Amino acid sequence: MTAPTDRTTPSRHADRTRHDRQAAAEILAASLVGHVGALDTAGRPVVLPVAVAPDGDRVLFHGSSGSRMFRTLAAGGPVCLTVTQLDGLVLARSAFESSMNYRSLVVLGQAEALEGQAKRDALRAITEHLTPGRWDSLRPMRPKEVAATTVLALDLTEFSVKERSGGPEDQEESGWPIWSGQLPIHMAVGQPVPEPGSEQRPAPDLPGALA
Amino acid sequence: MTAPTDRTTPSRHADRTRHDRQAAAEILAASLVGHVGALDTAGRPVVLPVAVAPDGDRVLFHGSSGSRMFRTLAAGGPVCLTVTQLDGLVLARSAFESSMNYRSLVVLGQAEALEGQAKRDALRAITEHLTPGRWDSLRPMRPKEVAATTVLALDLTEFSVKERSGGPEDQEESGWPIWSGQLPIHMAVGQPVPEPGSEQRPAPDLPGALA
Repeated sequence: MTAPTDRTTPSRHADRTRHDRQAAAEILAASLVGHVGALDTAGRPVVLPVAVAPDGDRVLFHGSSGSRMFRTLAAGGPVCLTVTQLDGLVLARSAFESSMNYRSLVVLGQAEALEGQAKRDALRAITEHLTPGRWDSLRPMRPKEVAATTVLALDLTEFSVKERSGGPEDQEESGWPIWSGQLPIHMAVGQPVPEPGSEQRPAPDLPGALA
Repeated sequence: MTAPTDRTTPSRHADRTRHDRQAAAEILAASLVGHVGALDTAGRPVVLPVAVAPDGDRVLFHGSSGSRMFRTLAAGGPVCLTVTQLDGLVLARSAFESSMNYRSLVVLGQAEALEGQAKRDALRAITEHLTPGRWDSLRPMRPKEVAATTVLALDLTEFSVKERSGGPEDQEESGWPIWSGQLPIHMAVGQPVPEPGSEQRPAPDLPGALA
């Protein structure tokens, strides 16, 4: 449990908000992608998708060392990393009560650019999150590939988790004559598509987020 | 086609980038959720998930009039709205060549807070995007509900679309003895869950993004 700050105390739906690391870890375990917000050179917000992976009390993400955003964040620029799982549409009898079911994690702070063995360990953790059991079988990373990648770690210190689940809250309008309820949504994985030469090899395990 | 600006010309993978409105419209048609980046009072980035809907040459999103972020954006604060569809994992024989297949739209600028009939039209467009054909059957919005909602429109003027598809680019390492290929990922919808009293009513149509 982490003390909420002014920035992680929502102005709306405080009842949907949690600040415990277990809730954050559960969202990260179920997620492959997050959206990272940084500032451009004029101080305006820029948001880009990144692969994310949990790593104890922090979250890892990585990108090209040539990326403007990653250079900015590696230099200690303020960051907001948001990870959202859409769980369904909530269809009430009114537009106002209609909503979405979701779990979202918002992490604020400054990221740390990892180097040396910590960087290699983080690259392994990211790969293992996306493709469990695969790291040891991959062609090992070359030094120039490690150098071309920036790996950032963001501590789960200032963060909030917001969740909504269940049906619409429109019981008072149960006489309105239309369907009311939920449409569940989830990520689904299709049949693996092997490259030529891989048809006879066993397909990889699914990430936990999709299993 | 919109002229790229310095901010929408990526520093990496320019070959994956497009600037045409058709590509942007296709991503929005396939999406229910985006991530909006704004500045907090200290000028730091904050990123939150929002429901999004296309509306001609602009994108619509809405939230509570009491939300700090929506107040900031309604006042003309700089915004970045990013919409991402994850299409799969790309599993190369090396970590460095492994990637994701995705389509993402990044829109920059200032949003316009809609009022009056334009606001009601936009609320209808958002509802119809999420739940086609449903607006006319809903209990009509009350004036206080419209007032409690901020509806923002962001022009598709300064934007970029980035896409990756296909298998890994690791043919030069075809001798490395592991599976190489793609794991396709998509959003899937489960069985509708009716509220008590709705079991005998026809379930709603799926949004185009899920159909």
